[in-house]
Amino acid sequence: MNAPPFGDRLVAAVEARGSSVVVGLDPHLTLLPPPFADGAASLQRNVVAAAVERFCDEIVETVADLVPAIKPQIAFFERLGPPGWTALERVVQRAKRRGLLVVADAKRGDIGSTATAYADYLLGGPDGLGGLDADAVTVNPYLGTDSLLPFAAYLDRGKGLFVLAKTSNPSSAELQDRLIETAAGERPLYTAVAELARQIGADSRGERGFSSVGIVVGATHPSQLGELRGSFSELPFLVPGFGAQGADADDVTGAFDERGLGALVNASRSLLFAYRGEEYSGLAPKQWSEATRRECKKMSTAINEALAGVRKNEASDRTC
Amino acid sequence: MNAPPFGDRLVAAVEARGSSVVVGLDPHLTLLPPPFADGAASLQRNVVAAAVERFCDEIVETVADLVPAIKPQIAFFERLGPPGWTALERVVQRAKRRGLLVVADAKRGDIGSTATAYADYLLGGPDGLGGLDADAVTVNPYLGTDSLLPFAAYLDRGKGLFVLAKTSNPSSAELQDRLIETAAGERPLYTAVAELARQIGADSRGERGFSSVGIVVGATHPSQLGELRGSFSELPFLVPGFGAQGADADDVTGAFDERGLGALVNASRSLLFAYRGEEYSGLAPKQWSEATRRECKKMSTAINEALAGVRKNEASDRTC
Repeated sequence: MNAPPFGDRLVAAVEARGSSVVVGLDPHLTLLPPPFADGAASLQRNVVAAAVERFCDEIVETVADLVPAIKPQIAFFERLGPPGWTALERVVQRAKRRGLLVVADAKRGDIGSTATAYADYLLGGPDGLGGLDADAVTVNPYLGTDSLLPFAAYLDRGKGLFVLAKTSNPSSAELQDRLIETAAGERPLYTAVAELARQIGADSRGERGFSSVGIVVGATHPSQLGELRGSFSELPFLVPGFGAQGADADDVTGAFDERGLGALVNASRSLLFAYRGEEYSGLAPKQWSEATRRECKKMSTAINEALAGVRKNEASDRTC
Repeated sequence: MNAPPFGDRLVAAVEARGSSVVVGLDPHLTLLPPPFADGAASLQRNVVAAAVERFCDEIVETVADLVPAIKPQIAFFERLGPPGWTALERVVQRAKRRGLLVVADAKRGDIGSTATAYADYLLGGPDGLGGLDADAVTVNPYLGTDSLLPFAAYLDRGKGLFVLAKTSNPSSAELQDRLIETAAGERPLYTAVAELARQIGADSRGERGFSSVGIVVGATHPSQLGELRGSFSELPFLVPGFGAQGADADDVTGAFDERGLGALVNASRSLLFAYRGEEYSGLAPKQWSEATRRECKKMSTAINEALAGVRKNEASDRTC
């Protein structure tokens, strides 16, 4: 055991790459670059899974020196049945070998022994029956603490959790924004989820100040990002919704603390399928990954510059 | 498509078997009967998965004429990696051939194209890339309508959904019971979920009066079962928590309507591993399934008798 806590591993990875970007591995079959399009269009699951695996492998090689983490979206692999899971397991292993943190975007949530089975597969290592051995996993809080503790049992092995709090999609308001009574007055339900995450990760804070249990808050909700960062300074945030979902660098600055730490900003389609953009129409089909590489760098730089701008404004506010 | 709606398929299956029991396929490795124990104790996933598959196959054969449905708990198959999914797919096919409805207990919840990938796998049929082809699936509502509609796209193929509303576990209260403002006054959050289920299934009601979108309400909450049945007469209920989790037949009567219809009551461990009970200590190891068969019949009878008792009391109340 005695692995460094996930919070510290996360900060170290972010600082080593100078980037807070997590690349979402969402292999939409109809969007894959030309070298993989034939395979992806097959009706045989093992052929499709092989194309997806080769595509994801190239993404891993393309971004490994640029970003701290990747986030495979489990649904796209599950879609392909057993060969999809085989592909996923190999891609995760490759990413870990290349020094990337792996956040399994599984959004699982179930009770007791069932949650344990999910946790053992997604976070469990090579011992025993083996597992995906991801570094962190997204979990759904609707069933409460019972459903989160089996995942939290992996915190002391250096693993992390991101609990869905305020998601990036339009209908997230339907339940997540409902006002509930709390000790501090009326608050949206997602703040109760952040409190749950705080409690579950309370003993996991690392030397850099972050818990190993964070929350998911969409980049599409800039004001909630800032409000939650203000109240939950120790929670790492996983921030989806950048790029294709419409948010930009200025929208996500509120997710970070004054050191410019504390959030992983996810983009998927805008990075994976950057080759489809007009500005890359001059690239040869085999060079598709060059577009991904450039967009990754652009995204990291945009976020870093937006954060630097915020710090500069704060400094000049203080001198006024 | 023009498949009969799920609500009608469910009522027909319940009436054909004279039972409202759904057998939960939760293959806990350490509890499997003697013929499968060696395989389950292996550290090779394909060996374990083969043992799980044979066990589940025998369960299907054992209960196929007694109950309307089985509910494979996806976590236990996912735990085993790709061979686990292969086993699951085969077990589901076998159950369907034997005339059982299959409720995939997946509790998935994700946004847009991701939810579509889950729905296509879990509910999708043999066309295209193939899929598990379950008859219904459990889904988590925390992300709102966005996350449910991709599953609802399968309703017109005769498929069904059960949305988690008030789950059977102790910490279900943490979020699900939070009071929120509604048009009808302060209500627990789970009633907002039931409203969501109502809306999503509004156009799917069958000839027997039930929607194809139901809710999950734990047998461990008898008063909420009755209250929800009173307000949501058209929603089928999936009711876990019977047996090992402590609820009995009297606890679940509130889930049914005055015809004795509208709920599937799930038990898992108390049926699958009935052979471990003291009263079956005289059974030879190979006869383990006889215990499952007897407990299934007992459970169906207990529920039917409890429902008959309620009807009798209501009738006598009316004559008073």
